Amino acid sequence: MSRPIIDLTDDEARAGLVLKWGSIPADVLPAWVAEMDYALDPVITETLMSLVAAGTTGYPAFGDGGIGAAYAGFARRHFGWELPEDNSVVTGDVIAGVRLALETWTDSGPVVVHSPAYPPFFDLPALTGRERVDLDFDPDASRAVMDLGELDRAFASGARTLLLCNPHNPMGRAWTRAELEGVRDVVVAHRAKVIADEIHGPLVLPGSTFTPYLSLPGTSDHAVCVTSASKSFNTAGLHCGHIVSPSPEVLDVFRGVPLPQNHAFSPLGVAAAVAAYTRGDEWLSSLVERIDGQRSVLADALAEHLPEARMRPLEATYLAWVDLRAYGHDDPGGLALERGRVMLGEGRHYHPDLAGHVRINIATSPERLREVVRRLGRAIS
Amino acid sequence: MSRPIIDLTDDEARAGLVLKWGSIPADVLPAWVAEMDYALDPVITETLMSLVAAGTTGYPAFGDGGIGAAYAGFARRHFGWELPEDNSVVTGDVIAGVRLALETWTDSGPVVVHSPAYPPFFDLPALTGRERVDLDFDPDASRAVMDLGELDRAFASGARTLLLCNPHNPMGRAWTRAELEGVRDVVVAHRAKVIADEIHGPLVLPGSTFTPYLSLPGTSDHAVCVTSASKSFNTAGLHCGHIVSPSPEVLDVFRGVPLPQNHAFSPLGVAAAVAAYTRGDEWLSSLVERIDGQRSVLADALAEHLPEARMRPLEATYLAWVDLRAYGHDDPGGLALERGRVMLGEGRHYHPDLAGHVRINIATSPERLREVVRRLGRAIS
Repeated sequence: MSRPIIDLTDDEARAGLVLKWGSIPADVLPAWVAEMDYALDPVITETLMSLVAAGTTGYPAFGDGGIGAAYAGFARRHFGWELPEDNSVVTGDVIAGVRLALETWTDSGPVVVHSPAYPPFFDLPALTGRERVDLDFDPDASRAVMDLGELDRAFASGARTLLLCNPHNPMGRAWTRAELEGVRDVVVAHRAKVIADEIHGPLVLPGSTFTPYLSLPGTSDHAVCVTSASKSFNTAGLHCGHIVSPSPEVLDVFRGVPLPQNHAFSPLGVAAAVAAYTRGDEWLSSLVERIDGQRSVLADALAEHLPEARMRPLEATYLAWVDLRAYGHDDPGGLALERGRVMLGEGRHYHPDLAGHVRINIATSPERLREVVRRLGRAIS
Repeated sequence: MSRPIIDLTDDEARAGLVLKWGSIPADVLPAWVAEMDYALDPVITETLMSLVAAGTTGYPAFGDGGIGAAYAGFARRHFGWELPEDNSVVTGDVIAGVRLALETWTDSGPVVVHSPAYPPFFDLPALTGRERVDLDFDPDASRAVMDLGELDRAFASGARTLLLCNPHNPMGRAWTRAELEGVRDVVVAHRAKVIADEIHGPLVLPGSTFTPYLSLPGTSDHAVCVTSASKSFNTAGLHCGHIVSPSPEVLDVFRGVPLPQNHAFSPLGVAAAVAAYTRGDEWLSSLVERIDGQRSVLADALAEHLPEARMRPLEATYLAWVDLRAYGHDDPGGLALERGRVMLGEGRHYHPDLAGHVRINIATSPERLREVVRRLGRAIS
């Protein structure tokens, strides 16, 4: 039975989404942090209610809590990707998984990060004692592409690990199989490693396809995927991610670490992830349909209120990277907040050296999204 | 209105406590990991139910979520300790808080850990790139005491930080004010630092008193407390601890770290902690009364089934460190599991070089605790 997306009212959003809505002034419309203004999938709510009633607020069980088997089924149905059921080590979230992979599975050489990036990616190399090599997407290109020549030179100069964001936040790209094969060939030539953040994999929109990096031949010895159901099901606060690998040897690396290095997941998060992967398809289908509609709303609203805005096709995620340089402001996000009372992702958080961009979270109602763009337009044009 | 402690049935415990009960064979009676076989305080359950209903499963709010103010009230009522309301930085749990404090606030010199210890303490120094200096409690002493001469020599030899467990798990000691003043004087003489794990502070039993280390004069510039409501309220899986300091300068150190270094707390955990600290007194009072009774049950059962067992007075915690060396087995915990089908904390996890000890979790029903000791007695005597 199909399960529709239910929009939260402003009051409901303010009460429930304590960061996105609850931590900002009441007259500010939020379109910043990557959370969705929708009620939870009832499957998630029921799972959590029954766990709380049972008092499952203590330590999580040994093992993966069923996430591996659940993700194997999900990956088969959604991505056509065959994984063994024993494919995952649970982590606190994607950040914790990437940190753990850097600390224990990569060597100490520099880490390649493409900009713009999910901001924690900028901090994770230093946090794990590694240098960072920044490669920029060309802000003037009509399509965001990874420059394989640059990547090759970065590895030739000593980089040892690529932090790959697939699909890419905030560029909205679902990398094609051919593009990922190109990355793989460069990585293999340098015997480097890949940590692939694939949290947005389920959020690829009609017209594009998600290709898990590890579904390519010749990747399982040099790559891990770090993912979570939390982005697609609005459960980031439950703290459950997982490192995915088809290789028992690779998984054993993470299983062998001392407890304090990987303990930050919750039994609620694990159960919610299993529920999402095994019983969330109908809701996810409604969600992708809604986000697909929202990208049209965004395009129309930008055309109306900000005709000089440049946006590449949004292939995946509910986060749109918008080039507003034509309006001549270094920090359009700051202006939008100050003058427009709308809170966007400020471009400098995602690409420190690139002025004039914002990230807009479109996972809200059509009405709110139109109002977000209207306010932004009024503020900067 | 008083709120009684409600014992979980075996089936309820198996369903709810997914590690302690759910991860071991059904015929094994669990008295190992530090969780309690009691229903949650209804105040906690109601708080969580209402948050789940509101969809508060996303990112936690900015700031401390009210924990500082709640803990200031709790510390005043329970410990007679006056704290400013702005006293806390929220962390994922105590482990995450200790890791963060080691990484960002102590220098890189060796860390002193007293054995036996909470096992993660053995891994945290290496995880943060620091050497560990082990100081042992004398297993033959009639009372566990910290040897200040040894501590002085450890600092003189280069150690820079003491990881203090106050009250002590698994020794069950509530350090006296005089003992803590002695520690402070040694620490100050060496300009060293103290990270005080005070998670068991609320679980001091009648006849003893909890003295927060930071309540001593002359400590606020060299010490932080790391604590959580999770041990007293059975909510470890919700992931919320906090670093406590009365010093704004010290708190600023932790507030200034990049997000990936301190992000692993949940909005459910924060709200549960606030509920526990502000509305949990009646339940906690019932709990302490129950644990007080359980220590008598333990003493009686040991006298009956294991008359050669040696146990020091349990002043705090629901975890009893029991010396079974008289029975001549290196690993009584292993035998207890194999022959007695009872799962205890194996001594070697808490003190790697010390044979013949177990840690018994007494936070269950009197009947179960008697059965735990009966099975242990049968297995090793």
